[in-house]
Amino acid sequence: MTGKKYAIGIDYGTESGRVLLVDVATGKEMATHVTPYEHGVLDEVLPNGRQLETDWALQHPNDYLEVLYQSVPEVIRMASIPPEDVIGIGIDFTSSTILPLDSSGVPLCFHSKYEDSPHSWVKLWKHHAAQEEADVITQIAQERNEAFLSRYGGKISSEWMFPKILQILQEAPKIFEDTDLFIEACDWVTYQLTNNLIRSSNTCGYKAFWSKEDGYPEASFFKAVDPRLENILHTKMRGSVHSIGEKAGELTEAMAQRLGLLPGIAVAVGIIDAHAGVPAVGAVHPGQLVMAMGTSTCHMLISDKETEIEGVCGIVEDGIIPGYYSYETGQVAVGDSFAWYVEHAVPGYIKQQAEERGMGVHQLLEEKASIYKPGQSGLIALDWWNGNRSVLVDANLSGLIVGFSLATKPEEIYRALMESTSFGTRKIIENYSEAGIEVNEIFACGGLPQRNKLLMQIYADITNREIKIADSKQTTALGAAMYAAVAAGGKNGGYETIIEAAESMAKVKEETFVPIPENVRIYDELYKHYLELHDYFGRKNNSIMHSLKKIRILSEEVVLSNI
Amino acid sequence: MTGKKYAIGIDYGTESGRVLLVDVATGKEMATHVTPYEHGVLDEVLPNGRQLETDWALQHPNDYLEVLYQSVPEVIRMASIPPEDVIGIGIDFTSSTILPLDSSGVPLCFHSKYEDSPHSWVKLWKHHAAQEEADVITQIAQERNEAFLSRYGGKISSEWMFPKILQILQEAPKIFEDTDLFIEACDWVTYQLTNNLIRSSNTCGYKAFWSKEDGYPEASFFKAVDPRLENILHTKMRGSVHSIGEKAGELTEAMAQRLGLLPGIAVAVGIIDAHAGVPAVGAVHPGQLVMAMGTSTCHMLISDKETEIEGVCGIVEDGIIPGYYSYETGQVAVGDSFAWYVEHAVPGYIKQQAEERGMGVHQLLEEKASIYKPGQSGLIALDWWNGNRSVLVDANLSGLIVGFSLATKPEEIYRALMESTSFGTRKIIENYSEAGIEVNEIFACGGLPQRNKLLMQIYADITNREIKIADSKQTTALGAAMYAAVAAGGKNGGYETIIEAAESMAKVKEETFVPIPENVRIYDELYKHYLELHDYFGRKNNSIMHSLKKIRILSEEVVLSNI
Repeated sequence: MTGKKYAIGIDYGTESGRVLLVDVATGKEMATHVTPYEHGVLDEVLPNGRQLETDWALQHPNDYLEVLYQSVPEVIRMASIPPEDVIGIGIDFTSSTILPLDSSGVPLCFHSKYEDSPHSWVKLWKHHAAQEEADVITQIAQERNEAFLSRYGGKISSEWMFPKILQILQEAPKIFEDTDLFIEACDWVTYQLTNNLIRSSNTCGYKAFWSKEDGYPEASFFKAVDPRLENILHTKMRGSVHSIGEKAGELTEAMAQRLGLLPGIAVAVGIIDAHAGVPAVGAVHPGQLVMAMGTSTCHMLISDKETEIEGVCGIVEDGIIPGYYSYETGQVAVGDSFAWYVEHAVPGYIKQQAEERGMGVHQLLEEKASIYKPGQSGLIALDWWNGNRSVLVDANLSGLIVGFSLATKPEEIYRALMESTSFGTRKIIENYSEAGIEVNEIFACGGLPQRNKLLMQIYADITNREIKIADSKQTTALGAAMYAAVAAGGKNGGYETIIEAAESMAKVKEETFVPIPENVRIYDELYKHYLELHDYFGRKNNSIMHSLKKIRILSEEVVLSNI
Repeated sequence: MTGKKYAIGIDYGTESGRVLLVDVATGKEMATHVTPYEHGVLDEVLPNGRQLETDWALQHPNDYLEVLYQSVPEVIRMASIPPEDVIGIGIDFTSSTILPLDSSGVPLCFHSKYEDSPHSWVKLWKHHAAQEEADVITQIAQERNEAFLSRYGGKISSEWMFPKILQILQEAPKIFEDTDLFIEACDWVTYQLTNNLIRSSNTCGYKAFWSKEDGYPEASFFKAVDPRLENILHTKMRGSVHSIGEKAGELTEAMAQRLGLLPGIAVAVGIIDAHAGVPAVGAVHPGQLVMAMGTSTCHMLISDKETEIEGVCGIVEDGIIPGYYSYETGQVAVGDSFAWYVEHAVPGYIKQQAEERGMGVHQLLEEKASIYKPGQSGLIALDWWNGNRSVLVDANLSGLIVGFSLATKPEEIYRALMESTSFGTRKIIENYSEAGIEVNEIFACGGLPQRNKLLMQIYADITNREIKIADSKQTTALGAAMYAAVAAGGKNGGYETIIEAAESMAKVKEETFVPIPENVRIYDELYKHYLELHDYFGRKNNSIMHSLKKIRILSEEVVLSNI
């Protein structure tokens, strides 16, 4: 015993799991270790070689256990700390990533009789084959005027839990029947660690129509979707919902031995990966907005009010910070649209220059673009390369650039793309403000803010707000470790609340991005045009973008029918 | 004497002069020879090294004479024909390309006392430094309700004759004073060949406010522009206007000797280069439209009616085909926008593929784009990379692409750009139709139609009209030779009219581009969206594009003021 206390945060991503050991008193990151998933994403074939259909994305549940077995002992070893000083484990996970279990809590796919059935495996968040099921659920919820629908911006995503369960029911009724329990992978891992079957308020709230006030929808709703689902809440969806910040249970003897930790230490209720970043940057108070920026952006806003807001993907009480509502909005293509640009529209001479100077193409474009003043490119773009999630919730929208001239340079287009995602964020923030939910402070975490300073300055200038950047490069794992410290509680050397934990453990960089008044003025002008384009292309009935998509699909069908 | 008769057509381009010898009976091209201009385009310094301002573009008049001296004897030699069988010479020229002469017809810049004065040199068509002067002339013409303005779409271009003269008057009054005559280079060359001072109805009509019915504007108009211009028509602009198709005069003894031809043969009234292509493809009847397609596109339409039409750059009686009106419209960036795309937005992997396959990037993109069906890219563009000439006459408009997705491929963008220029042409054609001027037949000449079959198919599909392609690669020189044959007249082995000449000498390829009904249907749908975008971005007051340009200019001024 050293007097110091440590917590372990485990970040289950799409391709690997990352285990982080932190000092509970300071948030200092002691050691980190990554275990790649042996089976990765199963999107072409099952482990036994059986072919999968398009839009499928599965995983192997054993890969999650391997992360525990390999990386937990490794961080203890790397940090050279006494294992008995570890007071808790917290988990964040991709979501909605679900799997069917048998009555002993064993994944169906572990049984050889099921291993050839695709539906017995883990359905990863980005399994997109349940779109029809999602549409059916949306439609029935609309027809029944289900109150929960308004908490999800009026639209159910194919990525969520019930569309995935409905797909299993419809395509593999035998698997459905043999399933004792459907569970989020996140909750399955805490179940494995503690032997307690609980469900997280965070995943249930954001991905399974649950709310603290109303619980799940009524049985009649599920019956309307499919009679066989009528009693699902009491059967295959049983398990009490625990609030984020609580303890899911205590580490079992067997698991403790395997991981080299003490049995009985706290295991926190799990959380969706992006959401774990919120406390990690210290955003635990109303009015604080966290942007997790990568290929896409997820915005999480803490508030003390609940209000219906256009285009919000989720409003959940106790969703991220206990005692508060958390709102989630999203922009579908952010890093993705920059990557598209670099892949498909950057001329050879830029790549060559980047090579000659030994730098990345993104880095070179950022350098070139940073010479420009706002508005100097003469370009403005709509950031809808993959549709619009918030606030329009319309996957059929598409990207637009206006203002090309024969003198338009690549770095100008790149800058316009960066500006467009930032205008999109401003629109989301103003959407909150107009509904009476204030955004007072902005934090950014994820890969992009670490790499691209110009991007962050543009966000500061366009939103006219200071932007603070996460100091940790593993924000979500840090957040998971913070929940672990809270689950352990003050008397065990942790904290009583996530707010207390944040005061000691959360970290942002000293350097922040402060709006430059001159830039703010010009961007205010440009934003008016963004809004005009936003509403002209995004809100008009029978809009050009919808029509282009329709014509494109028709035209592709003609091509296919000619083959 | 062989019994055969020949005519010479001389095409004066921007960088060189091309001389073509053709068989008058068949239009067969016997020999061609090019003489590059020794001094090229003077856009940085004068021949003596003196610096020029930006937007200037001058030439050396001696370079025009060298084309005669070098290339005319050369084609005779190459074709091995008896020089006495050549019955006439015709000239086409860039325009408005003007120069000041002394009282002996010698260019001022030939005198050493003027050679250091930029204003004493030839002002090439693309000398763009007279924009303010053009604006003043437009404004005064508007204020005075000058009828001629409507023949030019309501706007005077800085490229035309009087803005250039006004610039000389204002910036170099001494040169203006010492000038005996301002003349189109085209008319100066026929003057050199014949010793006759005449002006072409084609250049006067399109570039100098002249019309067959009304002549030039009144002296009071010129006085309003500048009192020193009041009498210009009787002084520095004297010279009678001769109709296109007439004889400018006969080859002088001295010139005949120099060129190795017989003195006394016909020299035709000169014509603007693009216009010479019209009879060369056989477009000599009302309803025939010729597109000269290169970096930009110039459309020339023959009609028997005169009507005011939005966005027409010129309506001239006897302008191209005697006895008819000719209308000119234009699209500013066609090949230029494809070139911009290949230069600034084609990814390295396309260039590499093209290299590996030993083909050009344009060619590879065309091949890839040709696999797509109309509408399949999901993209639609506005072709305003360099503003819009017809029908909106608005240089402050800019390019637009809508419909991007993360799956958008380079060849899809390339195809969308091709389609956009074609939609622009359809808009121009419909604009004629709506004004009661029919377009029955379309011909294409210039570099693009020779190279890009997909482009021509797209034009056929989008305009729903058959497109015929010029067979000659030197259409303008062929047209010039046809006017030479007409100037020589039937009794000398030529023709009485350009219509007769066209019947024997004009040539289009056998292969034409015929609309594919299935494509026409889809493009009809897409064209509706083009029109919607056209009017939304092109006709709205305080449009986004104008504002973007304004903000860009302001922003550039800020940058400059900070240097």
